[in-house]
Amino acid sequence: MTHRVVNFNPGPGTLPDEVLVEAGEGLLDYRGTGMGVMELSHRSKPYEEIHFGLMAAIKDLLGAGDEWEVLLLQGGASLQFSMLPMNLMTSGRAAYTVTGEWAQRAVKEAKRHGTVEIAATTEAEKFRRVPRADEVRFEPGADYLHFTTNNTIYGTQWPSEPPAGDTPLVADMSSDFLSRPVALERYAVIYAGAQKNLGPSGVTVAILRKDLLARAKSDLPTMLSYRTHADNKSLYNTPPCWAIFISMLCCRWLQRQGGLTGIGARNEAKAKLLYDELDRTGFYRPTAERESRSRMNVTFRLADEAQEERLAKEATAAGLVGLKGHRAVGGLRASIYNAMPVSGVEALVAFLRDFEARG
Amino acid sequence: MTHRVVNFNPGPGTLPDEVLVEAGEGLLDYRGTGMGVMELSHRSKPYEEIHFGLMAAIKDLLGAGDEWEVLLLQGGASLQFSMLPMNLMTSGRAAYTVTGEWAQRAVKEAKRHGTVEIAATTEAEKFRRVPRADEVRFEPGADYLHFTTNNTIYGTQWPSEPPAGDTPLVADMSSDFLSRPVALERYAVIYAGAQKNLGPSGVTVAILRKDLLARAKSDLPTMLSYRTHADNKSLYNTPPCWAIFISMLCCRWLQRQGGLTGIGARNEAKAKLLYDELDRTGFYRPTAERESRSRMNVTFRLADEAQEERLAKEATAAGLVGLKGHRAVGGLRASIYNAMPVSGVEALVAFLRDFEARG
Repeated sequence: MTHRVVNFNPGPGTLPDEVLVEAGEGLLDYRGTGMGVMELSHRSKPYEEIHFGLMAAIKDLLGAGDEWEVLLLQGGASLQFSMLPMNLMTSGRAAYTVTGEWAQRAVKEAKRHGTVEIAATTEAEKFRRVPRADEVRFEPGADYLHFTTNNTIYGTQWPSEPPAGDTPLVADMSSDFLSRPVALERYAVIYAGAQKNLGPSGVTVAILRKDLLARAKSDLPTMLSYRTHADNKSLYNTPPCWAIFISMLCCRWLQRQGGLTGIGARNEAKAKLLYDELDRTGFYRPTAERESRSRMNVTFRLADEAQEERLAKEATAAGLVGLKGHRAVGGLRASIYNAMPVSGVEALVAFLRDFEARG
Repeated sequence: MTHRVVNFNPGPGTLPDEVLVEAGEGLLDYRGTGMGVMELSHRSKPYEEIHFGLMAAIKDLLGAGDEWEVLLLQGGASLQFSMLPMNLMTSGRAAYTVTGEWAQRAVKEAKRHGTVEIAATTEAEKFRRVPRADEVRFEPGADYLHFTTNNTIYGTQWPSEPPAGDTPLVADMSSDFLSRPVALERYAVIYAGAQKNLGPSGVTVAILRKDLLARAKSDLPTMLSYRTHADNKSLYNTPPCWAIFISMLCCRWLQRQGGLTGIGARNEAKAKLLYDELDRTGFYRPTAERESRSRMNVTFRLADEAQEERLAKEATAAGLVGLKGHRAVGGLRASIYNAMPVSGVEALVAFLRDFEARG
């Protein structure tokens, strides 16, 4: 049997075994074409089925209608931090909430293109929580309000959207994309790097309401214009075909898990299992405030760093890998994205209980 | 045995069977890690070996010393059309040669960032050849001279570099990268999308002389600055790990073929085999002028379009796929990149001879 560890990496992270086995069938002879997926022309029918199949599956999972455009891009959320203001900061002013390092980076890039108003920040509390709805305030007339739905480093997640009123709401969903049902009607733009919940690194999804897209700036470098990609169905130039293929397989897998309702319930159960164990005795100290706890990245500490180091090391030896916290904050972190099975979290809980018992 | 066709696609195109078999070993359990390559953290040792392994292999193949920086980027050559002038059009003026559609697109993007001087163009001759050295002329003081080494659509290739004098020479090598020895000392920047000669789509390589990089513009959007990627060894954000993995395997494969000398000789032999057949009787009409013929994309025509269509169809039935010319020019095109074996070209030659005999 193939050796597989339980992989708590924060992204790129674990992918479903089923998908990886299917991927193997795409290497040398995809569906009798005599070519692997990486060798298909991106203008060929077999590839188009993959490409448009991913777009359709994303729309199906989100329940997105014709008013939405799905773009398959490159460069990660980091490039979206620039493309978003370049395209959509049409009046030169946007509001951002700041809940961690990625939100900070989004602000930094947006400032190159216009005025950024900080609608709320929890930096003073070291990002241990996300802002409450009543803390989010910004001047009317902003081009959009931006938030980072889940904060991988600090283990926090917005329980619901910040109140945006009539202002278009833009979300960086890189670390919880397709992990729970989404009230799509509240959003104008959602973007996400694939490598946490959707698939492998190398493809970035942006979902835009078409009315907003119609108002986007033109006269941008061609590859940095959302319209270029919308007008060309994300085939303006050669797309990252393999990453799109794997993401498409992952979406089909998500559909088999009962879509966002099914995976959302499972993700909630996984997170509860883990937080319940961490809360049990006080030996483990979850770092995020309770109302802001992430279902994707569970961050916690022990009494001291030496003990944390020992835990990570022993866990690795036990086949539970990727538990070290981000270097910016230290501690421990279990990333339990869509593809992490319940059995993986159960194995971690058993390990944690045993580790505590051994002192 | 696995069904494999002979794949003349212009890119993405065929990859070496050996590489695809090795790729399979990276899906579920890469070298005993219990994780697939797509699941490795990009900050982990096994991934770093892949990442820096590709950079080192590219430098080794090109014979590039410490004065060169290799960047692993995303967005294809199309994004480089913008990044290049954004970073390196420091005095606001650059010279471009125009030898086909991709060169035209490079010019179009560069014009957004400064003044473009056309140093030579063969557009009036419908790009059937590249300019001769004595036709290349531009005012002194240009930030760089840009050329497209190989033109996939028109089946032309520069036999040697355009004379640049003291001006930094920049090459879009997307369609003949690592296909023949390169006189690296003549270049300042080389960039290439991977999906023709290097590997799968999804990664773009840029190789820059460090002294030029040091003079690059700053205050650019972070992801669009060459310096960001140089300073972070192309790990500023999550790289396209799988595409880098496959490209690394392809470079190792190239090293086993005798490096650029070995593959260059084989590519020359493959092209000769095919052009000799096309030149034999006049039944086939190669479209590029003889001195400008590409060793990568062999374009030719028949007496009429109906016959061309019949050839492409019968070839496909015989397991020789991807021979249709680009929609902009019609006709036929055999792309015979690095990974196309001699046996594939021999099979095509036999088919062409038979097709002609049958009339």
